[in-house]
Amino acid sequence: MIPAPFLLYLGHTADPLAIKTSRGVAMFRRDACVGEFRHDDCPLTLGLQRMAMAEAVAAGARTLILGIAGAGGKLGADLVEDAAAALEAGLHVASGLHQRLRDEPRLVALAEQRNLRLFDVRDPPPGLTVGKGDPRPGKRLLTVGTDCSVGKMVTTIALARGLRERGVAADFRATGQTGILIAGEGVAVDAVVADFISGAIEQLAPARIDDGWDLIEGQGSLFHPSFAGVSLGLLHGAQPTALVLCHEPGRPHMRGIAGRALPDLAECLEANLAAARLTSPDVQAVGVCLNTSGMDVQAARRLCDATADRLGLPCTDPVAFGVDPIIDQLCPAPSTHSTIASL
Amino acid sequence: MIPAPFLLYLGHTADPLAIKTSRGVAMFRRDACVGEFRHDDCPLTLGLQRMAMAEAVAAGARTLILGIAGAGGKLGADLVEDAAAALEAGLHVASGLHQRLRDEPRLVALAEQRNLRLFDVRDPPPGLTVGKGDPRPGKRLLTVGTDCSVGKMVTTIALARGLRERGVAADFRATGQTGILIAGEGVAVDAVVADFISGAIEQLAPARIDDGWDLIEGQGSLFHPSFAGVSLGLLHGAQPTALVLCHEPGRPHMRGIAGRALPDLAECLEANLAAARLTSPDVQAVGVCLNTSGMDVQAARRLCDATADRLGLPCTDPVAFGVDPIIDQLCPAPSTHSTIASL
Repeated sequence: MIPAPFLLYLGHTADPLAIKTSRGVAMFRRDACVGEFRHDDCPLTLGLQRMAMAEAVAAGARTLILGIAGAGGKLGADLVEDAAAALEAGLHVASGLHQRLRDEPRLVALAEQRNLRLFDVRDPPPGLTVGKGDPRPGKRLLTVGTDCSVGKMVTTIALARGLRERGVAADFRATGQTGILIAGEGVAVDAVVADFISGAIEQLAPARIDDGWDLIEGQGSLFHPSFAGVSLGLLHGAQPTALVLCHEPGRPHMRGIAGRALPDLAECLEANLAAARLTSPDVQAVGVCLNTSGMDVQAARRLCDATADRLGLPCTDPVAFGVDPIIDQLCPAPSTHSTIASL
Repeated sequence: MIPAPFLLYLGHTADPLAIKTSRGVAMFRRDACVGEFRHDDCPLTLGLQRMAMAEAVAAGARTLILGIAGAGGKLGADLVEDAAAALEAGLHVASGLHQRLRDEPRLVALAEQRNLRLFDVRDPPPGLTVGKGDPRPGKRLLTVGTDCSVGKMVTTIALARGLRERGVAADFRATGQTGILIAGEGVAVDAVVADFISGAIEQLAPARIDDGWDLIEGQGSLFHPSFAGVSLGLLHGAQPTALVLCHEPGRPHMRGIAGRALPDLAECLEANLAAARLTSPDVQAVGVCLNTSGMDVQAARRLCDATADRLGLPCTDPVAFGVDPIIDQLCPAPSTHSTIASL
């Protein structure tokens, strides 16, 4: 486990998408965050107090979260410099980048000298094996998407919290770097050896007999030519009881691939259900979540209603409208209102 | 490139399936093999002369191929012992096991002392990136299967040789350890980081403008719960013009998963075509290959004919009957007869 509380790193960046991991941690583990670290040229903020490394240590911080994504998951010279400064001030350092902290001799030496730790959260756990698809007990929900970065992690966390608010045992199972930093555990499924994709998810969400739910964070999309293999192995390993389809309306093309259209929602959902039946013959779709952050609230509400009518499933935006319509499908009970603010 | 000629390793094993890699090299690169190494308790043979390490060196061998698969791809104590003996005799050593030769300090030290090399053919090439699915020129054929180990590699090599016999430029693109040892190059797609499955295949079979064919070895099956993620990423990365479906009649269950039935051939082919259209909208099925090695020849011929009628595609066994019916689909021309013996 990565020791909290955290100092969140923004560095020099001016790109809001590049700080997705720091923002996710600020959003879902705000109580565990004492401040943010940014240089003078960084125009972004997470709404936390700006702190130098030593100030953060004085305020109780134990770990710097390098929650920033440079080009290609690289650990640039500025990040290494700042990570070294954090270690010198007495902070552990955690990173979800492809390039590993432990491959930087300067950071390794500093951490050893000061008895501090480097956390590379994308490292696969030891002992992974191939999946088998053998039926296992338990209720599991997987979020699937029309594309990458459409809100699968936010939806999954919101559903886990929504179930717990109703007194149902529920655990968020993280499969990406941001989710792992939020949950404190999980497996970065895009970083495992290809043979072990489904096996890694079988290990992440094993048999469960307490009548509770595992809420598994999806990755990529069956329709994304870069990542569909990961998405399919994840789907088979998850052996889901329930699927929730996530989508961002108005996206002009598949992420990172200009000119490639997003799939139709009904087609995307049907393809996921068909593939999921290999290991979960009775899988059901239970809802659709839209990321309407780019729309005004009335238009967002109309789109959710129209989508619900078209697909015959509850449709909501977890941040704008909460996830009660989907929770009602999972455990019929008196409705309460939950929005992201209360999660 | 791994220096030929080769000494093929059988070791102590009595399991014919465990020597699949040595057998593949003996079958397709027989001219490059000087002999086989086996202990007294090994009842198997590849029909090559049995040799001790020093005898093989005297006969011109340059590399010991550890073409054997122990449980879980492990490098057991006996294999390490025999690999050390090979190095001491002056042979390079090549292995396709998951566990790497370079992680055995004793072998690394011996190789350094004697200026010999260790080849871990499952190591991914450096510099892999995510695939993009951007349309690229060239004719590419991919073999897909109802299951693992149904003859995809044999079919792919037979098709490459069949095309070349007709004067058509054609290259076998290996994606597994045995294929890599036969071709001398390729990428073990099951061993790459999951994010890079399709990208690895885009790199293996790049744009081609000579009107020739890339014949890409498939892996696993979309219907195998252990490996479908690899199969789908491979399918998207291959961006195939043509698919050939491979199947072994009479197999009682999916490989390694008792009780799980194989898919229907038509269903399996349709699922592969549907998934392939994401990156290759005009993909066509061009044939079916059956591994009928467990059947008598008349029954095999009748099954091929019945399968051809049922699926509306040429159907053959590449080993028993050659691949001409499928080559005719790829480049209509006067038929010649090719069987595995003449490949």
